[in-house]
This record gives sequence, C-alpha cells and structure tokens, in this order.
Amino acid sequence: TSTFTFNHVTWYAGSMTITYQFRVANTTLGGFVKLLGMWKGSVYKLVYKEMIIFALLYAAISLVYRLGLNEQQRLIFESIVLHCNNFTSLIPVSFVLGFYVTMVVGRWWQQFINVPWPDRTLYLMCCYLQGKEEKPRIIRRTVARYMMFGLILICRSISVAVVKRFPTLDHIVEAGFITSEEALLYEKVDCKYNKFWVPLMWANAVLAHARKEDHIKTDWGLRMVIEAIADFRDRCSLCFVYDWITIPLVYTQVVTLAVHSFFLTCLIARQFLDPTKGYANYEYDMYVPIFTLLEFFFYMGWLKVAEQLINPFGEDDDDYDINWLLDRHWAVAVTLIDEMCGDFPPLIKDPTFD
Amino acid sequence: TSTFTFNHVTWYAGSMTITYQFRVANTTLGGFVKLLGMWKGSVYKLVYKEMIIFALLYAAISLVYRLGLNEQQRLIFESIVLHCNNFTSLIPVSFVLGFYVTMVVGRWWQQFINVPWPDRTLYLMCCYLQGKEEKPRIIRRTVARYMMFGLILICRSISVAVVKRFPTLDHIVEAGFITSEEALLYEKVDCKYNKFWVPLMWANAVLAHARKEDHIKTDWGLRMVIEAIADFRDRCSLCFVYDWITIPLVYTQVVTLAVHSFFLTCLIARQFLDPTKGYANYEYDMYVPIFTLLEFFFYMGWLKVAEQLINPFGEDDDDYDINWLLDRHWAVAVTLIDEMCGDFPPLIKDPTFD
Amino acid sequence: TSTFTFNHVTWYAGSMTITYQFRVANTTLGGFVKLLGMWKGSVYKLVYKEMIIFALLYAAISLVYRLGLNEQQRLIFESIVLHCNNFTSLIPVSFVLGFYVTMVVGRWWQQFINVPWPDRTLYLMCCYLQGKEEKPRIIRRTVARYMMFGLILICRSISVAVVKRFPTLDHIVEAGFITSEEALLYEKVDCKYNKFWVPLMWANAVLAHARKEDHIKTDWGLRMVIEAIADFRDRCSLCFVYDWITIPLVYTQVVTLAVHSFFLTCLIARQFLDPTKGYANYEYDMYVPIFTLLEFFFYMGWLKVAEQLINPFGEDDDDYDINWLLDRHWAVAVTLIDEMCGDFPPLIKDPTFD
Amino acid sequence: TSTFTFNHVTWYAGSMTITYQFRVANTTLGGFVKLLGMWKGSVYKLVYKEMIIFALLYAAISLVYRLGLNEQQRLIFESIVLHCNNFTSLIPVSFVLGFYVTMVVGRWWQQFINVPWPDRTLYLMCCYLQGKEEKPRIIRRTVARYMMFGLILICRSISVAVVKRFPTLDHIVEAGFITSEEALLYEKVDCKYNKFWVPLMWANAVLAHARKEDHIKTDWGLRMVIEAIADFRDRCSLCFVYDWITIPLVYTQVVTLAVHSFFLTCLIARQFLDPTKGYANYEYDMYVPIFTLLEFFFYMGWLKVAEQLINPFGEDDDDYDINWLLDRHWAVAVTLIDEMCGDFPPLIKDPTFD
Amino acid sequence: TSTFTFNHVTWYAGSMTITYQFRVANTTLGGFVKLLGMWKGSVYKLVYKEMIIFALLYAAISLVYRLGLNEQQRLIFESIVLHCNNFTSLIPVSFVLGFYVTMVVGRWWQQFINVPWPDRTLYLMCCYLQGKEEKPRIIRRTVARYMMFGLILICRSISVAVVKRFPTLDHIVEAGFITSEEALLYEKVDCKYNKFWVPLMWANAVLAHARKEDHIKTDWGLRMVIEAIADFRDRCSLCFVYDWITIPLVYTQVVTLAVHSFFLTCLIARQFLDPTKGYANYEYDMYVPIFTLLEFFFYMGWLKVAEQLINPFGEDDDDYDINWLLDRHWAVAVTLIDEMCGDFPPLIKDPTFD
Repeated sequence: TSTFTFNHVTWYAGSMTITYQFRVANTTLGGFVKLLGMWKGSVYKLVYKEMIIFALLYAAISLVYRLGLNEQQRLIFESIVLHCNNFTSLIPVSFVLGFYVTMVVGRWWQQFINVPWPDRTLYLMCCYLQGKEEKPRIIRRTVARYMMFGLILICRSISVAVVKRFPTLDHIVEAGFITSEEALLYEKVDCKYNKFWVPLMWANAVLAHARKEDHIKTDWGLRMVIEAIADFRDRCSLCFVYDWITIPLVYTQVVTLAVHSFFLTCLIARQFLDPTKGYANYEYDMYVPIFTLLEFFFYMGWLKVAEQLINPFGEDDDDYDINWLLDRHWAVAVTLIDEMCGDFPPLIKDPTFD
Repeated sequence: TSTFTFNHVTWYAGSMTITYQFRVANTTLGGFVKLLGMWKGSVYKLVYKEMIIFALLYAAISLVYRLGLNEQQRLIFESIVLHCNNFTSLIPVSFVLGFYVTMVVGRWWQQFINVPWPDRTLYLMCCYLQGKEEKPRIIRRTVARYMMFGLILICRSISVAVVKRFPTLDHIVEAGFITSEEALLYEKVDCKYNKFWVPLMWANAVLAHARKEDHIKTDWGLRMVIEAIADFRDRCSLCFVYDWITIPLVYTQVVTLAVHSFFLTCLIARQFLDPTKGYANYEYDMYVPIFTLLEFFFYMGWLKVAEQLINPFGEDDDDYDINWLLDRHWAVAVTLIDEMCGDFPPLIKDPTFD
Repeated sequence: TSTFTFNHVTWYAGSMTITYQFRVANTTLGGFVKLLGMWKGSVYKLVYKEMIIFALLYAAISLVYRLGLNEQQRLIFESIVLHCNNFTSLIPVSFVLGFYVTMVVGRWWQQFINVPWPDRTLYLMCCYLQGKEEKPRIIRRTVARYMMFGLILICRSISVAVVKRFPTLDHIVEAGFITSEEALLYEKVDCKYNKFWVPLMWANAVLAHARKEDHIKTDWGLRMVIEAIADFRDRCSLCFVYDWITIPLVYTQVVTLAVHSFFLTCLIARQFLDPTKGYANYEYDMYVPIFTLLEFFFYMGWLKVAEQLINPFGEDDDDYDINWLLDRHWAVAVTLIDEMCGDFPPLIKDPTFD
Repeated sequence: TSTFTFNHVTWYAGSMTITYQFRVANTTLGGFVKLLGMWKGSVYKLVYKEMIIFALLYAAISLVYRLGLNEQQRLIFESIVLHCNNFTSLIPVSFVLGFYVTMVVGRWWQQFINVPWPDRTLYLMCCYLQGKEEKPRIIRRTVARYMMFGLILICRSISVAVVKRFPTLDHIVEAGFITSEEALLYEKVDCKYNKFWVPLMWANAVLAHARKEDHIKTDWGLRMVIEAIADFRDRCSLCFVYDWITIPLVYTQVVTLAVHSFFLTCLIARQFLDPTKGYANYEYDMYVPIFTLLEFFFYMGWLKVAEQLINPFGEDDDDYDINWLLDRHWAVAVTLIDEMCGDFPPLIKDPTFD
Repeated sequence: TSTFTFNHVTWYAGSMTITYQFRVANTTLGGFVKLLGMWKGSVYKLVYKEMIIFALLYAAISLVYRLGLNEQQRLIFESIVLHCNNFTSLIPVSFVLGFYVTMVVGRWWQQFINVPWPDRTLYLMCCYLQGKEEKPRIIRRTVARYMMFGLILICRSISVAVVKRFPTLDHIVEAGFITSEEALLYEKVDCKYNKFWVPLMWANAVLAHARKEDHIKTDWGLRMVIEAIADFRDRCSLCFVYDWITIPLVYTQVVTLAVHSFFLTCLIARQFLDPTKGYANYEYDMYVPIFTLLEFFFYMGWLKVAEQLINPFGEDDDDYDINWLLDRHWAVAVTLIDEMCGDFPPLIKDPTFD
C-alpha cells in the first residue's frame, strides 16, 4: 500500500513549509552539520543579498585605503578605524537579539497553534447530526462550507498568500465554498468591520433550525456542536488580534538599529590596517575578512529569524502554508461529514477476544 | 467589491494602533530596514526630545573643556573623564533592560489578550434566544447594551482615552449605550467600589426573566449564555486587577536609575580628550560623538519600549485603540443580534454535492 | 456625579498598594524619570538604611587608610585593594539577579492572580437562587458569609496583615462574617490541619439543602453554583500551596550571598588610592565614591525587588492590600446578592431600536 | 483558641519542608541577610563537604608549590597557573547555570502543582451522595480510601520517602487505607505496568453502583464525581510522566562538567604565586583564597539548587514532604466525607441582615 | 510481592528512555558527579566521534607547525593564530546556545506532554457503557482498538521507531489492533492526507450506535465518552502540527554555524605557539590542549542537547520510547475495559469506621 509509506517528502508534498527534523531524527556524527547544506529556507538564501552588498562596500573602502590615500590621510583613517573598533564592543547585539528573537519565536508558535481547525466541530456534528438522507447531508455540508468560508475570510486578513488565491468573493464562489447567492447575502450584511463572523452566525442558525426539525435529536447534541463552533470563532477572533496588535514597532526598530549600526561600524572598524604600523589586533592582513563575514552571517541570520517569523503567514520558504492547510481541511471535511459519516466496520470479536 | 480588497490601511482605518507587519510579510532584501523610515510610533519620535537635551548638555560640557579650562583644570577634567569611563562598563544596562523589557512585554500581551470581547455571548444568545418579535429583540439588545456598558465602565478605569470619550455617565447615555433611567438606577446602587458589575448583573437578571417567560426555551440555553457572561465578567475583573497591581515601582525605578545614571555618566565619560595626550581609547577627536548618540538611541529606545507598554491603554501611538474596539463591538453587536439573528441562506445542495 | 470621576488616587483610596501607571499613561519627555521622585514604595525607602551603613563603613576604612596607616601598611592595604578589585569582576551579580528576580516576579504575579474572588459564585447564585423573601435571602447571605470566612481563614495563613486584623475567631465574629454559634461549630471540627474548607463545606450543604427545598429550581442551577464554589476552594488550596512551598532557601541564600559578598568586597576594592602611586584605574581621588554608591543603589534595589515580592502578602508599601480586598468583596457581595439581586431596569426599546 | 494562632512553625509542624517566607514578610533592614544564618536546608549544609574537599586539595597543591618545588619547577608551575587562569574566564559557568537552573526550577514547580489533591472529588461527593446511613457512609469512605490508595501507589513510584513508609502492600493495609481482601484483589489484577489506576477504576465502579442504587440521585451528580476522579487520575498519570521523562541526561552532564571542570581548574589557577615575581593579578599573597572559596560557595550552591530540585520528592531538607501531605489528605477526607458531611449551622439572619 | 518492589530499573525495563533521577533523589556529597560516569545517553557517547575528528585535525595542524614550517612560515602562522584567537571571543556561542536550547527544551517537553493517552476515555467508557455480556464487551474493545489504531497512525508520521515496528498496515493487523477487514475499509477511504482520524470517526459512530441500542443508558454517558475521544483526536492533530511545523531551519542553521565556525577557528587559534617568542597567553606549551577539549565537550555537548531533543521521537538513547508506550496502553486498555470493567471489591466497613 504505497500511500502508507513513511515519507515526509510525499507527506507534505503540497506544502511549502520546510520540514527537516526527519533528517535529524537520530543524533549521529555530523548531526546538524547536514542541515548546513540545505538551501531552501536557509540562512544563506535569506542573507546572501545583504552579504554581497556588505562585501562590496567593504572592498570599496579597503581599496580606497590601500590605493587612494596618502600617508597623512591613512593616519587619520587608521585612528578612525581604531575608534570605531572600540564602539563595536559597546553594542550588545547578541544580548538584544537573544531576548527579541525569543519573544518573536514564542509569539510565532502561539500564532500557529491558534489557527482554528474545523475537525472537532465536524466530528461532533457527525455524531449528533446523523443520517444519510439528503437533508442532513445538506446541513452537514453547509455548516462545513460556512466554517471554511469564515476561515478563509480571517486568513485573507492575515495572509498575503490567501489573498492572492482568493482576491475576490468570486474566487471563493468558484472554489465551491459558497454559492453566488450566499456571496450576495454576505455582501448585503452591512458592517464596515471584518465580517468573518457572518458565515459562522449562519452555521449557528442552520444548526438551531436542524434541532427544531429534529435532525439533531437532543439539546445535548445542539449544545456540543454550537460550543465547538463558538470555540472556532473565538480562535478566529484571536487570529485577528494577533494580526492587529503586533510586536511594538519601537522594539523592532531598536533591534534593527542595533544590528545595522553594528555592521555599518564594522565596515570601517574591521578593515585590515598596515601590519607594519603595529596596531594591537591589526598585526595581520588577510585581505578577505572571513571572520567579519562569519559574524555577518551569524548576526544578520539571527535577525532574519525574527524577520521571517514576525509575519508567519507570508510567502517565505519557512512560512506556514495556509493554502495547503485550507485544501487539507476541505478534503478531510468532505470525507468526514459526507462520505463516511456514521459508517463503521461490522462489530466483531477481535482475535484476542477470549 | 471594494470593501473586500485586502488593505491593512483601510482595514484598521479607524484605529490608531501601528500595524507594520504587512510591510514585512516576506523576507526580502532590506527587510526590517524599511521599518527604520517610519515616524509614527517610531523610536525617533519617542526619543528625540531626550536626545536633544542630551546633545545640548554634551556640547556644553565639551565647549567648557575646549575653551573654558586652563591646562591645570583640563588635567583634572581628563582624570575625571577616565574615572567615569571605567564606571560606564560597570552598569549592566543591557542585561537589566533585557530582563525588564521581557517582563513588561509579556504582561502587555497578557493584558491585551485579556480584554473581554462580547462576541461569544452574543453568538450563543442568538442561538438560544431566537425570534424576530419585539420582545426577544429588546431583550437581546438590552443584554448587549449592558455588556457594552460594563465594558466601558471597566475601560474607563484603565484607559485615559476612554475617560476622555466618556467623562460622565451622560456621555454614555448620549452614545446610546444606556438610557437615562438606567443611568439613574446605576447611580442609585450604593457601593463605593468600581461598579462595572452592576450592568452585568442586570443582564443576568434579564436573561433569567427571559427563561421564565420562555423566550429561552431550555435550561441549557440559559446556562450557555449565563456562563458566557460570567466569563466576560471574570475578564473584566482581571482587567481591573492588571490595572490595580502593576509592576512593582521598585523594579521600574531600578531600571530607570540604571539607564539614566549610565547616560549622565556618559556625558562626561564620552567627551573627546585632547588626542595629543595619548590617553588610551581617546586617540581621535571626532567632535560629534556619533557612537554615543547611537548608544543613546539604542538603550533609551529600549527603555521607551517598556515605558510605552507599561500602560498599554494610554494614548501613545502604539497603544491599543480601545475606543476603536468599543465602536467595533457595538457595530458588530447590532448586526449580529438584531439584523441578522436567526437568518441563514436557503439550504441548497452545493456544486460538488453528488 | 462625583464618584464617577476618573481618579486613581480616590479609586484605590483605601488601598496601600502603590499604583503609578496612570502617571506614565502616555510616553512623554521624562517618562519614567518622573517616577524617580516618588518616595512611598520606592527603592530609596527600601535601601537607604543599608546605604547609610555601607557609606559609614566605607568612610571608616577610608579614614583609616588616609590617616591611620604608615607607608608600609599603606602598601599592603593597596595591594589588598587591587586584589579585591579583581574579584569584584568575577561575581556575576547582574546575571544571577536577572534570573532570580525574573523567577520571583513570575511567581508573585501567579500568586496574586490566584487569590480567589467570590464574585463569580455570587453572580451565578443570584441567577439560580432567586427570590426576595426571607429564606432565599438568608441562604444567599449565608453562602456569601461562609465564602468570606473561608477566604479569611486562608488569608490568615498567608498574610501577616490579615492575622493582625483578625487575630482570633472573635474578631471575625465581631466583623459580622460569622455568628458566635458558627464559630463554636467551627472550633468543634476536629482536624489539626488548616480548616479553611469547613465553611466552604457548609456552603455546599446549604446549597444542597436549598435545592431540596426547591429554592434552587433545577439541577443545573445547583451544579453551576457548586462548581463555582469548588473552583473557589481549589484556588484557596493553591494559595496554601504557594505559601507552603516557597522558592528553595538555597537559591535565595545563593543570591543574597552573591550580592552581599560583592558589596563587602567593594568596601575595600573601591577605596580611592593615592593617585600619585599611579595604580591603573585609581588615577583620581574623588573622596566620595558616587559610582560605587550608584551601583549599591542599583544592585541592592534589584535584590529588594525580590525581597519585597517573595512574600507579597506582607505589609510592605508595595504588597497587595488583602484587607482592602476583603472589604471590597464583602461590600460588593452584600449589594450583589441582597440589595439588587434579580433587579433590572424596565425592558424598553433603546434609542436606536428601529 | 490556641490552634488558631498564626504560627508557621506549628502550622507545618509535621512537615520537613523549609518555609522561611514568614521571616521576610516585610522588607526591613537586613532582609534576606537574616536568612543567611539558617542551617537547615541551607546552601552551607549542601555544600560544606565539597567545600572541605576543595579546600584540602587547594592547600595540598599550595604546600607543594611553596615547600616542595625547586626554582625551576616553580617556574613551570607558575606558567601552568597562568595558562589555567586564562581558561577559567572561558567557561560561561554563570550563563549555563542561569539557563539550566531556570529550567529545573520551572519543572520543579510544575511537578508539585501537579500532584493531585483528593479534596475536590470529596467535596462534590458530599454534595451529591448524601446521607448519614451506613451504606452511603461506606461508599463515601470507600471512594476516599481508593483515591488515597491510588495516590500512594503513584507516589511510591516517584518518592523514596513514600517507598520507605510503605515498602509493601501490607504496610498500606496496616495503615488502614485498604483491607487485606482489597490488597489480594489488587494483586490479582494481571498487568506488568504501574497499576495505580486499579483502585481509581474501582472507585468509578462503586460510584456507578451507587447511582444504580439511587444513593446518587441524578445523572448530574454521578457525572460531577466521575469527572473529578478522571481529573485526579489524569494528574496521577502526569506524575508518572514527570518521573519517567526527566531532564535529558546530556544537559545535566554538560552543566556538571562545566562547573566541576571550572573548579578543578581553579585549584591550580587561583594559587597565590610568589608576589615578588610580579605576575599581573598575582601581586598579593593572602594564603587563604577567600574569594575563590566564595565563588565556590556561590557557583556550587547554584548547582545544588538544581540538584535538590531535579528530584523534588526525595528526602532533602527542602523536598516536598509527600508523607505529610498524605496524612493531611486522609485526616481531611475522614472529617469531610464522614463526620461533617451534609452538616451546616442553622440558617439564621446574620447581624447586618436588615 | 515482588512486582511491588520499588525499582526503577525493573519499572521501565522495557523502555529505552534514560531515567537517572532516582540516583540523585537526595542531595549528597558528589551529587551530580555520579552522573558523569554514565555512558548510555551520555554526552560522551554523543560527542566522542566529533571529538576524535577534532583532535586529529588539531594534531595534524600542530605537527605541521612544529615540524613542517620554516621560520618565515612560522611567523606567518603565528600571526594567523593570534588573529583567529581574537575572533573566538567575538562569537557569543554560550549566549546563542542558551537561548536556543531553552527553546528546544521547552518545545520538547510540550511535545511529550501532548502525546495523547487513551486512559481517560477508557475510564469513562467503563463507567457509562457497562455490562459483561458479549455485545458491550465487543463495543468497548472495538473503541479501544480504534483509538490505538489512530494513535499508531499518528505516531508513524512522527516517529521512525514506530514506522520500523509497523512498516505496513499488515503489521498492525498482525499485532491485533485491527482485523484485515478493517484494514481494507481504512484503505478504501479516499483522502490523500494523513488519515489518522478515520478510526476515531469509526469509534464515534460505534458509540452513537451503542447509545441507540441502549448499551449507553443516558445522553450524559454518550457525551462524556464522545468528548473524551474528541480531546484525544485534538491531541493527535497537535502531534501532527508539532511534526509539521518545526523550529525554523534558519535558527538551527545560525546556531550550528556559530558553534562549528567557533571550533574551526579554535583549531588554529588554540595551537600552542613557541613559548620563547613570548606571545601573551601563549607562554606555556602543554602539547595536549585539555582546556580546548573541555570547551569542545562543553559547547558541542550543549548543541547535542538540542540535536537530540529537536526530534524527540527518534531512536536516540534519550528519546521517548513510543513503542513501549503503545504496549503499555494496549495492556492497560485490555485489563481496564475488559477484564475488570465494573468490578469492585465488596463494600465493607473499613477498620476505622466507627
């Protein structure tokens, strides 16, 4: 049974997200080193442009110092270099990055965990709103569609990728999540704020109607599903809040300023000076500042971690693939509430039943 | 359909809060650098006044040293500068700011997440207290109004902006959240402590009354709504607690003292000394202490992050716009529980229904 | 309406707790600097005694060095000073304080958030145990009184201030929370452990009795209130646990030892040495060691943050005012469950009802 | 009423746990300094043996250097000392300890908070399974006994102290928690994994039986108690998980290695060298390395914090006293569900009832 | 009773996981030092291969310097060494590792805590779906089997060890969790995404069927079990999410890069130079760089902590033994819901019943 094969690559085939942990399932020689060779979603891909600019600027200044200055100018330049070098040790780049990135990562994870999944509601609905006839099937499908519609509406407000997929209501109609009549009704609701709650409200009303017509047999059943939808809605709200209230701009600016002013200073401070002049720590001229470049990779990469995660629903290599998730939800929903709802294998004694 | 366009600027148009993450949705060349150019809610706007004062003081001291002192006095001044310079390395400004700001940011987020939203209650009420007749509509609207009134009362105790909008009860009456009779009854309740719970108590009583008159059909229904309001009230309480119990004054003072004594010392320690005297690390006279100013921007900006977030309901550029939120809640509430309550599109087979 | 005026000072008038965030609602020039001038609950008030002792000891040693030692002794003293000075850089005071204070602050906040509020129970009781007749009123008041009694019992075990207010059961009787018969019955319960759960058990039994006599109409109602009291009791338990299991003594000792040995060493290491001898970093004699004193303020103040928060229910300026909270709970309870229970304004159409 | 006196010493009299926060209830002069004098549960008690060994080794090396080496050997020794001294600054002991101890402390607290208390279940049972006749009393007592038995079984798997108290089933029988018939039935359950869930399963069955025989009047009642026991069981599971999955050995080894290699190096690096040779930072010979010993106290004590907390259910001075807690639970349980179950003082008007 | 003996070694006999905390139950002399001697799951085992490679490279470079270079080349080499040595202090390895490992450890623990246990569901089912006849027994066993099947399906997607045990559906059939008919039906469900929810859906349908046939007597009963299964399913989903969304590759790469570039630099920077040349900090030639090797052990071990925990379901010594857990669940399930379901010892008065 081929689909049963354990294969991460196949598994998340449709998904952009970078998964690499199966490569480091066991701790072996090398370990994380293997990961250094990946390109997609890698620090190199994120940093290389800045790196090239940095290297070019560095080279330009170096050439001016080596070829363009006379002895007098060189002395001035050298004293500026020494002065700058003092300063680089005054910026606690690693410290500020450590605290900032920890906060961003924490928020990033909360944000993903919070994206609502329709599964629980669908499960409960299958259990309490049974029947293979047309009416219950329509009701179950309608509720599922409205939940998907609400989810798409909220995702549009947080993810550029979803906006690109569904730029207008017509695209959602076309994808089959709503009919054009429903789109019209949605448009008619007069509220200038985000209206993701409209289809969820419909779902509620549909379920109350189903209870009245006795498709849902008990108040228990109604309550279980209504509560699951209310939780779903709360999480949609929270998605909205996460998007509305971001990490304060001031904090981000302070960190960015620290890292960039550090490297601007390094452009001068890390120039190799004439070794014959015997400046402390400038005894050797390697021409290529490999250690400064490593530092650049390291710190700038750390900052890029934050940059990538601060808006986790963008289109970066490592961002969540919300569109993949939407597809998954709909495919599962259809199977769950329509095709196999209420089915179960015949109840037989299992082999060890004595 | 224009309102459907993805546009953060429109989206939160009424809101003061700074949202910038859509600018960094994708990690690109530059990335956060783009954010350095923003003014509203920026570190520059917060720090520039202190910066000017700092720069003027620095210049004054510099001028005195360069022009006003004789050689003997200069020697004394120089030894003071060297002594101060030692001290600047003894203050762990970055360390104490890292821990303090992390705590403040954590609290700030908890505080916002905790602000109660009436949505869940309204949803459940729509489901269990149906009917388009006058009485149920009045009941639903009344409960919504009382929840808004309770929320405004608690917001007034935590946010200056809300106090400015609703300085007296009359303003709340005028805004239509309560009638003047209700205002009178509210005033009559004799309790010297914050009375935000009075309208919520009324809402409870109204709902119990609605159950008796059978507008709510089941005990289930009553319980669902009552519980949602109880949760709403708990969160109002917590808002009050967050406002009552702040980060201990001592901690804030210690951090403020550290940062400010650091920069007071810098005023002297970072003066450029006569390079001809060959003091270590004072070999070059740049006249303008750009690195010290950068440090000022950096550390003072970090402190301002805390200053801005410690009272997140003020009127800073980056504070939550509670008034915007109140407007949103009321607009949504009216649509939700009055205009579209119980409506849903006709139940039809969707396109993929086979 | 004067009581409606926004005024923190009035608001928490009865409360000892220091609230200062309304002073920094908006980020302005100065900002936190304004807070440096506060005395009550300030770092100065907490530290000044230690400061005076430190300064006197420093002065004594300084005088001995300057006046009491001959040249030979001075040389020995100077080498001891230099040796000590090396050591001061070996103690990571800021590091250990950062981690320790973060932990203490986290625990402090959890502890306060956990103190149970009776409000939720009273709300639900009002909703499910209605009636203005004598019997239901007595029942509601009795349950409220028993909850207050349980709360006082648990608070007595964690807060010195509450013990001072209610040193014996008679004081609680006098305050009207229980009658002397109830006090007698409480005493008769034979259990050598904290008996805060006895009145809560009574409240349970009273409610079960009320259900039997049909004052509570439904099992739903009973369950809602019973569950709220069970939650109340769980939180009382947790208060007890927080008080029983403290931050391990070892940790507190390690931190205290680090800070105090640091400053004991500073007494010698930071003495000004004869500048003419040219010891590095001892070039200038300022007589008054202002930077060392600033460090003292800073680090000792940081430690005091922990000291103040480790037992948040004491009588420090910045401790929670539990007694104020108890008064508030009782005042609210009486209004809530007796005076206005079941009342609500007449149900009318609000102005925007169309 | 003597038992009412506020007295921590009496309060936790039976408990080994160190409680000290009542000593620092108010921030006073001295503050934490008072705690430095405590011996039980102190850092001194934990560290003094290692300290003596360290001091002896240090003295031995010192004596060899001072008395046993010729001039040539001394020079080699001195260069080794200088080399070692460089290294001591390369180990970030404080950093790694800060992160590690923070993690251990967090886990320690979670672990304690998680230990299940039977109180909630007993409360609810008292409310829904009333009656002073023999049968309900037996049922309530049986459920309580089974919960205690389950708790003891899980505690035995995590705490050496509990194993010592109840080394065999017979000891539990003797203590009266189960009868010998029950012990026999327990033994007969054939499962090679921890069987703490067996008595809890019995409790469930007893309650279901009680519902059938109408001792529990409503399905509500059954559900409330069953759910409370299910929560109790979940927490027992979690205790097991906390014990099964510990902080990874690698992490503990890394930290231990860092601290111990640091102090092994210090044995050599911190030797006082002949001051006449003028090595930098070795100008003064104090014979007794008090600062190194202080560092030892400090860092080793910090590590001991982790060592003590990593297994919080051992027999250290500062470990939780699980046996005390078991006694407390049983004493409270008997009073709660047997002696005073269903009792409440006569319902009368309280003094302020108007 | 031998199985009652407290013995961690026996207890977790079937489990690979390393448990060591019973060795440090009490804080004694030595304490953690004892742990340094463990090999299985130790830092040595994880690091020794890298260590050997590092040592060989170091030796090779050392030999070249000592034997292969002429005086001119040596001078160049020495200046390179000094230059590199400067750089090693610029990489904040400990800082970045501290933050990164803290994050990884936090996530690791969340991930384990989240793995769903079937116990709660089985408990509740035993209570509400009683009966020793064939039909209820079959139903209970079937639900348990389906839960195990769902758990295995989700575990296969996150753990290599489980894939190895159950490479195909046939292996699961063989192990007795499902029959071949059920396997066939599972295969027939057409959905390209992970289908772990299919058996859980079946379990739901079986329970709804059991309610209809009155094996479950009340709606309460159905709801309790359905809700427990819904929670079980939610946790399965979360397992999937934890596996899908990992710590961003960029962060892992940045940390790996930092540590490895640090040690690559150390290969050169920590070479012993000719002591006669008097380079500062290179005064002594120890031939074997024990301190550098210690640093290697320390930092590389710290990184290995992360490497081991980032995929906690692999086959490392310290990974969770999911297969052991699956065996445990099934063994407990069979005993719980089949053998002893509904049994309880005769209800008798316990010894202290008076």
